[in-house]
Amino acid sequence: MKTIKISTKKDKEVIDITNIVDLEVKGIDEGLVSVFSLHTTAAITTADLDPGTDQDMMDAFKEIVPKLAYRHPHNPEHTPDHIITALIGSSLVVPIKDSKLYLGAWQRVVLVEMAGPREREIVITVQNLDNKTPKV
Amino acid sequence: MKTIKISTKKDKEVIDITNIVDLEVKGIDEGLVSVFSLHTTAAITTADLDPGTDQDMMDAFKEIVPKLAYRHPHNPEHTPDHIITALIGSSLVVPIKDSKLYLGAWQRVVLVEMAGPREREIVITVQNLDNKTPKV
Amino acid sequence: MKTIKISTKKDKEVIDITNIVDLEVKGIDEGLVSVFSLHTTAAITTADLDPGTDQDMMDAFKEIVPKLAYRHPHNPEHTPDHIITALIGSSLVVPIKDSKLYLGAWQRVVLVEMAGPREREIVITVQNLDNKTPKV
Repeated sequence: MKTIKISTKKDKEVIDITNIVDLEVKGIDEGLVSVFSLHTTAAITTADLDPGTDQDMMDAFKEIVPKLAYRHPHNPEHTPDHIITALIGSSLVVPIKDSKLYLGAWQRVVLVEMAGPREREIVITVQNLDNKTPKV
Repeated sequence: MKTIKISTKKDKEVIDITNIVDLEVKGIDEGLVSVFSLHTTAAITTADLDPGTDQDMMDAFKEIVPKLAYRHPHNPEHTPDHIITALIGSSLVVPIKDSKLYLGAWQRVVLVEMAGPREREIVITVQNLDNKTPKV
Repeated sequence: MKTIKISTKKDKEVIDITNIVDLEVKGIDEGLVSVFSLHTTAAITTADLDPGTDQDMMDAFKEIVPKLAYRHPHNPEHTPDHIITALIGSSLVVPIKDSKLYLGAWQRVVLVEMAGPREREIVITVQNLDNKTPKV
């Protein structure tokens, strides 16, 4: 298990963390990796990242959560960021194959920053499910 | 693996189940826990639970799903509850560290009840990934 | 780990893949199964599938994502499909009990096709957590 710090640069941004996670699965022929965000305004998911798609996502998220009179006492302006994070989720499990994340051609593992810039922490937990090598 | 019953009290509510899950991970130095809801109108996610944020979430969810002429034969009024549950998801995987859920400072594991009050069941499955203790 | 191909028939549809996943967990008394979609316009979740509910979901998803001037260069018309997929997620972990998925009475594992018809691939990874049988 490894906790990795990621410095985000903007208020809202989608950050490709595929290569960061890939580094942790080297040497695993077959397995699973859990990627978990330790935050309530930064989510983890997979996405297509063709140029501009990151901003498309943020534009859509802004419209999806309605502008209501929120109660959240700390800062009601952050309530939509909390709600999008709870919807997307903070937890992702990805298969590992041949020392790499087993992803589709256009699929990237992303951190969705909703209230940056900030130093974020993600927890990467690797499970080796290789049955080929004898465990003796 | 343990199936735990949770009695919800309202039609719509966010219930903090962090302490319930924490009880199941005692004695695990390092691992993962899967939390799974056995329902189609009660979801599992992580969230900030500052006072009022639970109601903020419910107000937002109500607006996010459009009011359409739904087909669902059993009770079309519950269709938005099914849709929010499918969006949030019924499955969460959280890291375990030092006998506790490894969560961020404001992060709680929550059951999102969309059609209560009811007795709900969640399945908690713990995986011990501790490599420090020799397995003999 | 097994990669399974699923041929979808329509542009938008919800496909029940419970039986397909069930076939892979035979012989496992207790465990977890990860179901992962290798796509950015096809998601995995659990849902109620009373007749018509699949179309209800698609009608709602269409309204949930706003119609904006998206940037996505490959085909901006697919941007809402990418956004719904990132929201629902591509990853699901389900408990296994007595050689079957441990699901609620109305709960099905579904592939949400947002840009078909196409041949889709899902990765099924089974973890045996049975402690009853001695491993010697």
